[in-house]
Amino acid sequence: LNTNVRVSLPVVCFVWQTAMVILFGVFIRYNAESDVRWREFRRTNNISSDIENDFYFRYPSFQDVHVMVFVGFGFLMTFLKRYSFGAVGFNFLIAAFGLQWALLMQGWFSSLDTDGKIKIGVENLINADFCVAGCLIAYGAVLGKVSPVQLLVLTLFGITLYAVEEYIILSILHARDAGGSMVIHTFGAYYGLAISWMLYRPNLEQSSRLQGSVYHSDVFAMIGTLFLWMFWPSFNSALTDHGDGQHRAVINTYLSLASTVLTSVAVSSLFQKQGKLDMVHIQNATLAGGVAVGTAAEFMLMPYGSLIVGFFCGIISTLGYIYLTPFLEKHLKIQDTCGVHNLHAMPGVIGGVVGAITAAAATETVYGKEGLINTFDFDGDFKGTTPSRQGGMQAAALCVALVFGIGGGIFVGCILRLPIWGDPADEDCFDDQFYWEVNQEGNIASEIVIKRKSVFIDLCKYNHEIIICNRTTYIYLLQITYSLLDVVLSHCVTR
Amino acid sequence: LNTNVRVSLPVVCFVWQTAMVILFGVFIRYNAESDVRWREFRRTNNISSDIENDFYFRYPSFQDVHVMVFVGFGFLMTFLKRYSFGAVGFNFLIAAFGLQWALLMQGWFSSLDTDGKIKIGVENLINADFCVAGCLIAYGAVLGKVSPVQLLVLTLFGITLYAVEEYIILSILHARDAGGSMVIHTFGAYYGLAISWMLYRPNLEQSSRLQGSVYHSDVFAMIGTLFLWMFWPSFNSALTDHGDGQHRAVINTYLSLASTVLTSVAVSSLFQKQGKLDMVHIQNATLAGGVAVGTAAEFMLMPYGSLIVGFFCGIISTLGYIYLTPFLEKHLKIQDTCGVHNLHAMPGVIGGVVGAITAAAATETVYGKEGLINTFDFDGDFKGTTPSRQGGMQAAALCVALVFGIGGGIFVGCILRLPIWGDPADEDCFDDQFYWEVNQEGNIASEIVIKRKSVFIDLCKYNHEIIICNRTTYIYLLQITYSLLDVVLSHCVTR
Amino acid sequence: LNTNVRVSLPVVCFVWQTAMVILFGVFIRYNAESDVRWREFRRTNNISSDIENDFYFRYPSFQDVHVMVFVGFGFLMTFLKRYSFGAVGFNFLIAAFGLQWALLMQGWFSSLDTDGKIKIGVENLINADFCVAGCLIAYGAVLGKVSPVQLLVLTLFGITLYAVEEYIILSILHARDAGGSMVIHTFGAYYGLAISWMLYRPNLEQSSRLQGSVYHSDVFAMIGTLFLWMFWPSFNSALTDHGDGQHRAVINTYLSLASTVLTSVAVSSLFQKQGKLDMVHIQNATLAGGVAVGTAAEFMLMPYGSLIVGFFCGIISTLGYIYLTPFLEKHLKIQDTCGVHNLHAMPGVIGGVVGAITAAAATETVYGKEGLINTFDFDGDFKGTTPSRQGGMQAAALCVALVFGIGGGIFVGCILRLPIWGDPADEDCFDDQFYWEVNQEGNIASEIVIKRKSVFIDLCKYNHEIIICNRTTYIYLLQITYSLLDVVLSHCVTR
Repeated sequence: LNTNVRVSLPVVCFVWQTAMVILFGVFIRYNAESDVRWREFRRTNNISSDIENDFYFRYPSFQDVHVMVFVGFGFLMTFLKRYSFGAVGFNFLIAAFGLQWALLMQGWFSSLDTDGKIKIGVENLINADFCVAGCLIAYGAVLGKVSPVQLLVLTLFGITLYAVEEYIILSILHARDAGGSMVIHTFGAYYGLAISWMLYRPNLEQSSRLQGSVYHSDVFAMIGTLFLWMFWPSFNSALTDHGDGQHRAVINTYLSLASTVLTSVAVSSLFQKQGKLDMVHIQNATLAGGVAVGTAAEFMLMPYGSLIVGFFCGIISTLGYIYLTPFLEKHLKIQDTCGVHNLHAMPGVIGGVVGAITAAAATETVYGKEGLINTFDFDGDFKGTTPSRQGGMQAAALCVALVFGIGGGIFVGCILRLPIWGDPADEDCFDDQFYWEVNQEGNIASEIVIKRKSVFIDLCKYNHEIIICNRTTYIYLLQITYSLLDVVLSHCVTR
Repeated sequence: LNTNVRVSLPVVCFVWQTAMVILFGVFIRYNAESDVRWREFRRTNNISSDIENDFYFRYPSFQDVHVMVFVGFGFLMTFLKRYSFGAVGFNFLIAAFGLQWALLMQGWFSSLDTDGKIKIGVENLINADFCVAGCLIAYGAVLGKVSPVQLLVLTLFGITLYAVEEYIILSILHARDAGGSMVIHTFGAYYGLAISWMLYRPNLEQSSRLQGSVYHSDVFAMIGTLFLWMFWPSFNSALTDHGDGQHRAVINTYLSLASTVLTSVAVSSLFQKQGKLDMVHIQNATLAGGVAVGTAAEFMLMPYGSLIVGFFCGIISTLGYIYLTPFLEKHLKIQDTCGVHNLHAMPGVIGGVVGAITAAAATETVYGKEGLINTFDFDGDFKGTTPSRQGGMQAAALCVALVFGIGGGIFVGCILRLPIWGDPADEDCFDDQFYWEVNQEGNIASEIVIKRKSVFIDLCKYNHEIIICNRTTYIYLLQITYSLLDVVLSHCVTR
Repeated sequence: LNTNVRVSLPVVCFVWQTAMVILFGVFIRYNAESDVRWREFRRTNNISSDIENDFYFRYPSFQDVHVMVFVGFGFLMTFLKRYSFGAVGFNFLIAAFGLQWALLMQGWFSSLDTDGKIKIGVENLINADFCVAGCLIAYGAVLGKVSPVQLLVLTLFGITLYAVEEYIILSILHARDAGGSMVIHTFGAYYGLAISWMLYRPNLEQSSRLQGSVYHSDVFAMIGTLFLWMFWPSFNSALTDHGDGQHRAVINTYLSLASTVLTSVAVSSLFQKQGKLDMVHIQNATLAGGVAVGTAAEFMLMPYGSLIVGFFCGIISTLGYIYLTPFLEKHLKIQDTCGVHNLHAMPGVIGGVVGAITAAAATETVYGKEGLINTFDFDGDFKGTTPSRQGGMQAAALCVALVFGIGGGIFVGCILRLPIWGDPADEDCFDDQFYWEVNQEGNIASEIVIKRKSVFIDLCKYNHEIIICNRTTYIYLLQITYSLLDVVLSHCVTR
């Protein structure tokens, strides 16, 4: 396999980016709130102050979501000892492409004005970041095993599928999904898992030496974890209703996440002989509560309800890392580098179910008549929808997300199996040096591995053969010391 | 001592989290601004727009405070070469538990509605984060010397004490403490120091090899420092009055912190023979200005007043690291891992004093009649309070914080001395491997220390036994091996 | 050369900080929106709500800008293997000083009230951060080659020059420069480059061993890159008009930056034999789009316009790193450590030109009459200015920025050449240990280099001298080598 992407990567980047310029030229314009004629719009619509511009309701949340997408997802994946460049760098690349394509795809479905133009504002930017998040989740499943070109293809199709799926779920089924438990997490995770299944590598253990973390790469990953964890309330509230909608989504998410941390820690400690904690669980399972509360975050889930959701998700997600990931790899041939099944797929499905139940159980006593209408948008075509029917729609939406994720993943996986994408060989997975210029140090590290083997073999042989200390023997020893010295010094010096 | 927490940690996490679910179910509800009936509330109270929801005044500050609590405090403590997992991971654990308990404790004291429910909104979330910060400060004093179970106990009692102390200071004494110089920093620091005093370890130098930093752990700690430094204006303004109150608190904190940086650098350089800077000072003392301006941040401290506060705190805090920390350890038997005495205790007390003086010196000329009433809340039961009386109350509040901190710390310290908590032996302090699954590397690092000794001993013995074998040649070879060994080991050990 | 700054650094810090206190005492006061009399002001000016305080329009952006200045710039420069302390620490120091001096300098020019006082609010804080950014860009050019005292001098003069230049550009020429393409980036970059030219070090290759990165230092630098990239929309919109002005600036910057990422990646891959990506390009060139869209961000640049600007800047900036930086060093004697010419100078100039063209091309059809007046501030003295005249003014502004940058840099460079500042010798550049207490490890690293040489020499000599050696001795020696090997290899491999 040839990992040289010198032609394919630049071509894809240039052509796609040029296409974006053209399509944006044809389709994308500012909306009323970001256009220079906003003041006229304000007067016409009797808006009393600039602060009523949607920008001021959503911009702080948008920036938090932006941090989650680029630093959160990017750094969460830096845990591998030799794939930090790829984790944070390719995450950067595909997110930057994806958000442009998402603005178009989502725009055609939901922001198309009568003049045939897509009118964008801060809400579209948030939606684009959400859409990108779905693909970044999928990236987690195939981390270290694909080329940047494959990732761009994964993103192109992922965004497209997402936009269709989102349209069906939010507009046709009229389901609610504030934080995207279904639309983003369920879809993204199964999309990635299905691709990983299609790209199954039977000999992946050949790169097992690189599949672990080192001390500092685990600390880097905690940066990702914490920024995701801290800003998740912004994620789940970024697109909810002004006022109580955003306020409540924040509280629910904040509580659910807090609860998850404790149960993740408990299970992580319980399932290790000496009660030690595993960084993988702390980095990932602690976030499951945010995923699972996504759909219901804006509902009257009640604070204790949020705690309960987080409570169980922490347990399930951690158990997933302990039992399910190895099982999936061994028996279902799904190699899930970051364990997205435990962090996004299962909690996403739970989130969808919780959302369906909460919606079906909504009563006028709790919500008030007006509240019920506002929260579930029971107006226009959907005037008079009952909560139980809404619950059904939510359940249907979950199925749509699953179908799009699995089906789309299998389809895209087929494409990505073509031998033209420059993906790495089994023994070269999880290694930055095939797509990044890693300075000397990197090369030496792998030379050491080779050198180690030969030195060890020689020494073992030697051990049984020593008889006298003739000159040849002695020189042999010296050579070993030599190469040893070589290894050590090159290591010390290049650090 | 047995550091196995496989039973105790999961039990505590599960039981306490279950208790939280139940207590939240009984007590915690959404407040008027986060409840679905907000629109009715808006109409009834004649609130013109959703943007007047307190959420939009405080949410950006809340997120900044959240970052300070989880990334700021967490990463600030990663400076130790082998305790980064514990620093950032246990910080995460106890903060996640603490904020739930804080919502309850603070709620019972201050947000209890007539129906016996605690009604929460964004202000409660900020308050909970503040409360947690107090315990995280205490964690800084005992960093690396306690087990996670002890930390959870420390947090349980810390939050409880904090809530009582806060109630006395803010409600009974009616003192003002915007950024918590007294309530958070003075209390938290003395609470931690008192616990550390109770848990004094006479043989802690046995783990001195792990008590320093390595190059990259210092860079990680700077992430914590900077996020604390940058977001401190949000911390001090998060709960101040809408409008000028928040605005002024930001300006004062921003200026005080800037001033501290310069004097910290100056003193750090001045007290080292060659004028080199010490990372410990840059990581910690530069933050003292934010602590010290906490109480007075919302007052008319004036920009130059803020600069002066920061100026002296930078000096005092840095001198504290140079002279006071060793003194405390040697003569008062207080082992203060992160130097919280210099960063939080002293600046906190200074902040309380500055607050008392500024309050006592408040005049109608500067504040205006209305301003005086609004700034100091001279209404209701406290109508007609004079500034000088307010100054007295502020001073009394400082004493309350000190008493609660020291007294509470001694009490909790007694509990934590029980031999049931799984705390590490003296030679195992500051080492992640007793509570975390650290991959091979970690174990090897300590094996090396042992191996080094035996190899050296062998070599020494051997040195005297050499008889024949072209002696000169032999010694020569030995010297080479020696220096090689030296290079390797010094490298391995210092990493 | 003597790098001892034990006298000069503390003296400069103390004296300058004291001067700040005095000048702030004389000049700086709160403005109407941060003063305690805000409520009266509100009543007088018929402002309906506290939320109309400028604080709520700008504070979230301010905090983002603050993060860019301290974490963004600071961590972006940590890429050097042994200069991370200096990068993030000196960045911290000069920014903390600079923002105080900027408040004064900019205040005298633009916020001086009739009573001779400078009245400050959140807008001044943002402006001060902007001003500081100019000096931090200049720092990028001289990174690793100057002492902290020189940096403080660079900052003192840089801020002063900036304030004058900004006054000429914004007030006299009445140019618009929302994100400071000209005022900040062009000025800052050429200021730094001119200083670097004046401080040319012909023998800098003597420290070439330290001029590269190591694996983890590159990951640290990505923290800087991403926080700059993510928060750049806040940077360009922080000071634009309320409402659509801020909204539009965010959209334009968001899009331009996304586009830059793809073309940077494309060019980086294209110009390397095997198509591998270079971290230097990903860390830097991906930001060029944010710089270049700075001036025009608030104009009706249109979404596709932003994409186009980003498209070309990604290409130009990456090519600059590949071809121009080596050229500048070889032929123009400009040593540009961070490549600020590619990241700030060229994109800054492009930004100025784009701004001039966009302004000149503004029509009433696109902007509306009111929009044109508001966007370009065609009122007061500038009532009736035509867009084409405005375009000319923008072009003139660009020249002013260039002249101030280059001229100022040469002037300050002359001062910094004096042999009194404690700058490092050529072989000591890019090494933290001359200004920071780096623990053992650091010293050992350099000792290893020395030891290596002598060991190698000895071994080579020895190789020819070997004769015999007794068996027991020999095996014993082998065992030692064995355990040594064990230690070394396990260490190397697990890293």
